[in-house]
Amino acid sequence: MSRRPRLPPTIRWAGGDRRGRLQLLDQTALPDRFRILRCRTARSVIEAIRRLSVRGAPALGVAGAYGTALAAQGRIGDRDTGRARRAFLRDAAALASARPTAVNLALGVDLARRAWLGALAGPRPLASAFRAALRAARGLHRADAAACRAMGRHGSRLVADGGTYLTHCNTGALATAGEGTAFAVFVAARRAGKRIRVLADETRPLLQGARLTALECAARGIPAAIVPDGAAGGLIARGLVDAVFVGADRVAANGDFANKVGTYPLAVLADRHGVPFYVVAPTTTLDAATASGAAIPIEERSADEVRSFAGRRVAPAGFPCVNPAFDVTPASLVTALVTERGVVRRPNARRIAAHLR
Amino acid sequence: MSRRPRLPPTIRWAGGDRRGRLQLLDQTALPDRFRILRCRTARSVIEAIRRLSVRGAPALGVAGAYGTALAAQGRIGDRDTGRARRAFLRDAAALASARPTAVNLALGVDLARRAWLGALAGPRPLASAFRAALRAARGLHRADAAACRAMGRHGSRLVADGGTYLTHCNTGALATAGEGTAFAVFVAARRAGKRIRVLADETRPLLQGARLTALECAARGIPAAIVPDGAAGGLIARGLVDAVFVGADRVAANGDFANKVGTYPLAVLADRHGVPFYVVAPTTTLDAATASGAAIPIEERSADEVRSFAGRRVAPAGFPCVNPAFDVTPASLVTALVTERGVVRRPNARRIAAHLR
Repeated sequence: MSRRPRLPPTIRWAGGDRRGRLQLLDQTALPDRFRILRCRTARSVIEAIRRLSVRGAPALGVAGAYGTALAAQGRIGDRDTGRARRAFLRDAAALASARPTAVNLALGVDLARRAWLGALAGPRPLASAFRAALRAARGLHRADAAACRAMGRHGSRLVADGGTYLTHCNTGALATAGEGTAFAVFVAARRAGKRIRVLADETRPLLQGARLTALECAARGIPAAIVPDGAAGGLIARGLVDAVFVGADRVAANGDFANKVGTYPLAVLADRHGVPFYVVAPTTTLDAATASGAAIPIEERSADEVRSFAGRRVAPAGFPCVNPAFDVTPASLVTALVTERGVVRRPNARRIAAHLR
Repeated sequence: MSRRPRLPPTIRWAGGDRRGRLQLLDQTALPDRFRILRCRTARSVIEAIRRLSVRGAPALGVAGAYGTALAAQGRIGDRDTGRARRAFLRDAAALASARPTAVNLALGVDLARRAWLGALAGPRPLASAFRAALRAARGLHRADAAACRAMGRHGSRLVADGGTYLTHCNTGALATAGEGTAFAVFVAARRAGKRIRVLADETRPLLQGARLTALECAARGIPAAIVPDGAAGGLIARGLVDAVFVGADRVAANGDFANKVGTYPLAVLADRHGVPFYVVAPTTTLDAATASGAAIPIEERSADEVRSFAGRRVAPAGFPCVNPAFDVTPASLVTALVTERGVVRRPNARRIAAHLR
């Protein structure tokens, strides 16, 4: 990689307030094309989420909040406030459940939904409620970017000069509204002058590692190599990995967490070989309402994602496939949890509760 | 899968003796096309092996022996026996080292080479030496088919009616000259009336599971599903796997073994969750000359296999990749080793030596 690609923003609210729209960098077209989706309705945001044009727990949260603002925008001209309210809440509910595992999506939608409901007053209630929803979305957007930077700063203290770090899926700018979660650690370490090398699991079936993390490493000038998912365990066993850094889609109250499928085997292998295993996630991903990993719903996705590879069929037509999008890792395998507030060593229910107080 | 595909033979010597040729079912074209390669020279067999048109430790052994017979065939008309001998030995050495990890390839070549050297006598020494090399190759071919059937029979006793069994890479008819190694266990269990379900790891980067094992399950009418490599560990953790059956490319004297990359993580996960982990390999794959797994050479293959699939690029152009073809699993993680002679529980140097006596 001699040329450094420049990535456009993953999520952007464009065109001012009342006539604004949500711009999403379509991640399904990467690394080949930088295609921008322009969403003007909640429905189009739902479609973008389902198709994984936007993905990554924090980015889903911000997209969900903006999608709710679009639902509010669509109601501004309504005559009947009661009907507008029902339509808005229906859109918000559909947005919140577009994907089940990441807690941030429902949280982002809820934030904008509450702002809307709380501002339904005055002479033009639907217009002021829309502005409140948009303000909430923009606030979440800014807060996520700030959280990314703080996670990077805290996490980079766990990184040594000259170290090699394995990561899974994509946790960078493409997965958040800032520099990333686990990936922000690499960015901050690099900024602090540490020479590091990243090993990026390719992350089948949708290859977020090979397509997206590799692109982000190239864009940031971070030395890196792509690793087939099955090869990572052997590299850990051979002492070629100094630590594993991953993100999370939902962290339960006891520290168990769901993340992209293939995370759990890495945690087991790291544990077996005494390699530190770090989870980096904003506090918005910590879900106090979910007691343990057993209560996290795991999304099962289409067999077509497994049967084909970059649009080419690779298995007998119609052959059955198992395709869970996530797996659950117990807290006992986590060396430390890094949030924007700091580092929780050996996370458990008590330490996480204390961290959030 | 409603239609059952019928697979042509993986390896076939066609056209009689002196004008015979080796036919290989080109595995790089599967599951889309059944393309037959016709090899008339040792060089063309070497190319087929490097390209993975033929693969799987036992199949490599048989192809290596036939390739050596082709090298001998090419020398029949030579006037100078000394020069013929040098050329033949050069071809045999190139064949034996076409791939480094599987011990069977070097073994198959050596078998035919010794037969050739031992028959260099009489009025037409190069013709009789060729016939001896071809006889040796045919003998290995028949012995491998018989060994597959015996491994299946022994291994099927480890399989329960109604069980779900995970496997990695391809270990069936396409990887051997018979019904397979680990896969033969499924075939034999099915023949014995046991209802089983197979979970086939897709096995990146070359997708031998998705492309080949799925095809063989369909051909045999064995219920099966393809699993992304990273998802297998989560399925084991959730209690959805009753045992893991894999093949081997080389088993060291102490029971450590090399197999397709991604095998070692499965062994660790199986161990952690108390799931039996079985290795099925003919005694030809047991290499007494290799003391332990640390001495097994691991082939590193081209980054292009990871960066692209079937001509489609999936990562930034030229991005570095790590691509070891194999990994090594210690004997301590093996519940039992199954060969054509029977079952070795908890294999170690002493038990393996006793098994081979």
